Amino acid sequence: MIKLYAYNTINSLKVLMVLLETGLEHEFIPLNIRQGEQHSPEFRALNPVGKVPVIVDGDLVLAESNAILLYLAQKAEWGLGQSADDAAQINFWLFYQASSQSPYFGQVEYWSAIAKKPNPDALAQYKAIAHKSIAYLNDELEGRNYLYGDDYSIADIALFPWINDYGHLGLSLEDAPNVARWWKAVKARPATSKACRFFDDRSVFKTKKPTE
Amino acid sequence: MIKLYAYNTINSLKVLMVLLETGLEHEFIPLNIRQGEQHSPEFRALNPVGKVPVIVDGDLVLAESNAILLYLAQKAEWGLGQSADDAAQINFWLFYQASSQSPYFGQVEYWSAIAKKPNPDALAQYKAIAHKSIAYLNDELEGRNYLYGDDYSIADIALFPWINDYGHLGLSLEDAPNVARWWKAVKARPATSKACRFFDDRSVFKTKKPTE
Repeated sequence: MIKLYAYNTINSLKVLMVLLETGLEHEFIPLNIRQGEQHSPEFRALNPVGKVPVIVDGDLVLAESNAILLYLAQKAEWGLGQSADDAAQINFWLFYQASSQSPYFGQVEYWSAIAKKPNPDALAQYKAIAHKSIAYLNDELEGRNYLYGDDYSIADIALFPWINDYGHLGLSLEDAPNVARWWKAVKARPATSKACRFFDDRSVFKTKKPTE
Repeated sequence: MIKLYAYNTINSLKVLMVLLETGLEHEFIPLNIRQGEQHSPEFRALNPVGKVPVIVDGDLVLAESNAILLYLAQKAEWGLGQSADDAAQINFWLFYQASSQSPYFGQVEYWSAIAKKPNPDALAQYKAIAHKSIAYLNDELEGRNYLYGDDYSIADIALFPWINDYGHLGLSLEDAPNVARWWKAVKARPATSKACRFFDDRSVFKTKKPTE
């Protein structure tokens, strides 16, 4: 049984989406990061950096959401494409997500919802960068149902949660029809819908939404 | 024959280190990013984001340095550990590098060498974060030769280039003896030494060092 230590966050949602798509048996252990539960000695023993999500599967204790996505996809033999080239391109998207999409969108959330001192210039600048990233996705999704190849993969799962927050972040998909179509298709999947409802339905998650 | 489009950058060095460790046949195609060569239509056709490194191997065109590391390691069957758990932990380090080490050290370089308007507070803040990241590596390297497992892996290669720049960045390894030992061991490897010399020996790379 895989234990998932997580909360109502972008990176936790990714992992829950893969668990529900693959049907891997798991237990969700909520860790209220708004109340600092990630800093407990017990959790720091699992992840010294004190960040969710973390999974425990037998002897394996694993952090970094995209590394978890890869591990679960390999375990379930799902969502990794068919060939070595497919896997390489899916890895591309996972690293693009970690090193570009996440900091870009994270800065929009920071300047729109977290920063104590507003800075309209910084917010406008990061919104422009996030919209550029959305335009790039839009180009890549031209003539394609999914980010890579013909099948839904962990690349789509990795990129979905920040895009799903576009309204909350004050961003727009109006100029990105391919992204809007892809977003709706991913959102409509039973596993995605179940994962989103999981957070909506539980009172433990009813605090201000963090980005971690 | 693998074509590597790259320059004298942190992320290009990683890829060259793996190519030289594994002995994979390759051609290095320098792309002078200080002169904007990454924005040429020819290169944008390979990577619309306009960033080096990119490799071309047969039909595969691949960007994101850590995705390239994984692809080359799988191709050469080298540097990925022995088991699925090993591979998962090595992936952890690759994503930690992309989402934490790289932005932390990148901000130190930005505020120490690139920003037009100096900001000593920002520089001090990002140096403190980078030193915290070094302290984390130091803890993880306690009693270990390499970042994961008994063998040198692409995890070590991914984390090395920013640590190798610690002096240039005004950072210190004095309080991190395990990192200093690990850094020296990685630096002393013939492939590392050859990769570093490759950049030092060629006039095409003799422009101000970028971080991309």
